[in-house]
Amino acid sequence: MTSHGIRDRVAIIGMGCTRFGELWDRGTADMLVEAANGSARSAGVALDDIDAFWLGTMDSGYSGLTLSTAIKVHGKPVTRVENMCATGSEALRAAVYAVASGAIDMAMAVGVEKLKDSGYSGLVRIDPPDDGTATETTAPAAFSYLAPAYQAAYGLDDETMRQALTHIAVKNHANGARNERAQFRKPVTADAVNSSPLVAGPLGILDCSGVADGAAAAIVVRAEDAYRYTDRPMFVKALSVVAGDGQAMLDDDASYASIPEAAQSAANAYREAGITDPRHEISLAEVHDCFTPTELVLMEDLGFSSRGKGYQDVLDGVFDAEGQLPVNVDGGLKSFGHPIGATGLRMAFECWLQFRGEAGERQLPDPEIGLTHNLGGRPGRCVSFVGIFGKSPSAAQ
Amino acid sequence: MTSHGIRDRVAIIGMGCTRFGELWDRGTADMLVEAANGSARSAGVALDDIDAFWLGTMDSGYSGLTLSTAIKVHGKPVTRVENMCATGSEALRAAVYAVASGAIDMAMAVGVEKLKDSGYSGLVRIDPPDDGTATETTAPAAFSYLAPAYQAAYGLDDETMRQALTHIAVKNHANGARNERAQFRKPVTADAVNSSPLVAGPLGILDCSGVADGAAAAIVVRAEDAYRYTDRPMFVKALSVVAGDGQAMLDDDASYASIPEAAQSAANAYREAGITDPRHEISLAEVHDCFTPTELVLMEDLGFSSRGKGYQDVLDGVFDAEGQLPVNVDGGLKSFGHPIGATGLRMAFECWLQFRGEAGERQLPDPEIGLTHNLGGRPGRCVSFVGIFGKSPSAAQ
Repeated sequence: MTSHGIRDRVAIIGMGCTRFGELWDRGTADMLVEAANGSARSAGVALDDIDAFWLGTMDSGYSGLTLSTAIKVHGKPVTRVENMCATGSEALRAAVYAVASGAIDMAMAVGVEKLKDSGYSGLVRIDPPDDGTATETTAPAAFSYLAPAYQAAYGLDDETMRQALTHIAVKNHANGARNERAQFRKPVTADAVNSSPLVAGPLGILDCSGVADGAAAAIVVRAEDAYRYTDRPMFVKALSVVAGDGQAMLDDDASYASIPEAAQSAANAYREAGITDPRHEISLAEVHDCFTPTELVLMEDLGFSSRGKGYQDVLDGVFDAEGQLPVNVDGGLKSFGHPIGATGLRMAFECWLQFRGEAGERQLPDPEIGLTHNLGGRPGRCVSFVGIFGKSPSAAQ
Repeated sequence: MTSHGIRDRVAIIGMGCTRFGELWDRGTADMLVEAANGSARSAGVALDDIDAFWLGTMDSGYSGLTLSTAIKVHGKPVTRVENMCATGSEALRAAVYAVASGAIDMAMAVGVEKLKDSGYSGLVRIDPPDDGTATETTAPAAFSYLAPAYQAAYGLDDETMRQALTHIAVKNHANGARNERAQFRKPVTADAVNSSPLVAGPLGILDCSGVADGAAAAIVVRAEDAYRYTDRPMFVKALSVVAGDGQAMLDDDASYASIPEAAQSAANAYREAGITDPRHEISLAEVHDCFTPTELVLMEDLGFSSRGKGYQDVLDGVFDAEGQLPVNVDGGLKSFGHPIGATGLRMAFECWLQFRGEAGERQLPDPEIGLTHNLGGRPGRCVSFVGIFGKSPSAAQ
């Protein structure tokens, strides 16, 4: 019994994305309406043409049923999915599976979160709430573990480690400054990052992503139908989700210098997409840079850098907008903030724009393959999503 | 562009279900472990053999990631779905689509809720929380509207209406008395129902289902693989979800004598399954009897009775365990209570037992087709799920 996979069998024909930020004058429904209608407009369809909807949201209080009310669709299946900070990617995965199954012809995935006025605590709760082990940790604290672990694993001195983290922050904010949908559009200097007030461990405030409101949406159909709607569909080459149960951190060689779930989800996705050399085959990657050390560690877990070499590649500019493999060319979580249900779809949206040549001053020269990586939970016990998207169907499969 | 549907393409090869009730000595994780392992045992597989998991839960605080911890599966996709009181059915739908898509070979759907000590309020919140229209209503109040509307629509006198509702309560509790997994196992008399203290409108306490803890699980594979695991798989013939946006109640002829979303989801499912005469083709139906008038109205919305004739069919015993079309032969929500994420899967579990000849003293003679109907929200704005399951693949498609 072998998985058929979904490589090149489903395509995205329309996407929409709101500006992310402190949207005090907009409710959850307003953002859903903008993202949903934006995706429909870009696909040249009406919301009524869509056969089923998946809503990704964690904390908004919206359910499948309330989405139907917000965007005024009647008599369609509307379902909510949630997987912590990977929720937006899960909405897309649900829509893709439904279309690939043949049960649904055209599906929408839409993700939303309104965090700025919701009392969002930033606490990460990853344990079953009733088994006696539940703990709460702030997100900066949970992810700060990565930095000293990485530094120790590869014998980096403090200054080199700081330079690598700072390079990531400077790069992502420089990218976000060129994106009209980003929350933070001001470039930051290395000096500003190096001297930003400490939040947790070695992480300063400029090592952290922000808290934001936002929504994004995608419309998917079977690949063979895609060119009826657009001459530039985006093909789904692979989707992989891997959840850990925390046991991995009990291994003798466990270390916070790696996020094993990310490595495994990437390996799964590369196998499905037929990618053997991610560093050279992937044109752009949108990764979960909730904190600068997360992006650093991910460069190795996603196979972009050899183990222990990620910091050097970062410092060499490999992942800069003009580098060999641009990472977070849209600005990433660092510039956008992280409205939980929307983030995974926002990542796919940058691939969409880049493949269509609609990325404005961020436009990369002829990108062919994009990767999105979205993480929920925290290092040590997390869920990792990797999606691979292509401008064209593979020549041979 | 036409939907291929999933008729007979996916099969359930194992199911598990806990006892439902006031399980003060069991946590959410305990129930998940029992249901998940029960389904794996009945399929003759290990949890590690399963490629992906979908968790249905509304209020437990569990996410996909925490399910992986509870049942100790590492490195697999584990995702939460939610659609109010139809959440359990949505977990099954997600697993079925994933398998039908070819992306996943073997998937588990597991649903759970622990309501008895969670402070569950019984309030039904169906409106977007931030658009200024949000209301809260108790579930008994929201569903009580059905009774006077039905009575008025068809000119029934108070006594006839009461007899019909009472018949449903007496029937379902008589059925539940024969089910070792039910919360309430005591038959009730018509007198007891007729004189039970009023809760909302004409509904007495014995017109209402209870609040319970429970969990249930199913394992699905592609139909062609099913007989490798069991000689008695259960085939998925149709799944339909329909969400309303509340606009239907603004129509001139709108009435609480019907739940339009239920009628539409049933029509969709019958079309997919090739059923033209539900009353005669369906062997058993598990319907969402959260309150007695819900079951009454559903007999018409699901096409088991003509409009305005449901009450007479109820009184004639058509839906009794020994009737033409047994409804809630396992005892229904009335006997089980309604642990939200588990209920939809509990309904499918009765079809599973009945098809396999494992329903003990409730066993029906050679059932071939089972229907499950699961409702979220409230009359006027709800989400309705209809699933159709078969003992055998259809002879011709």
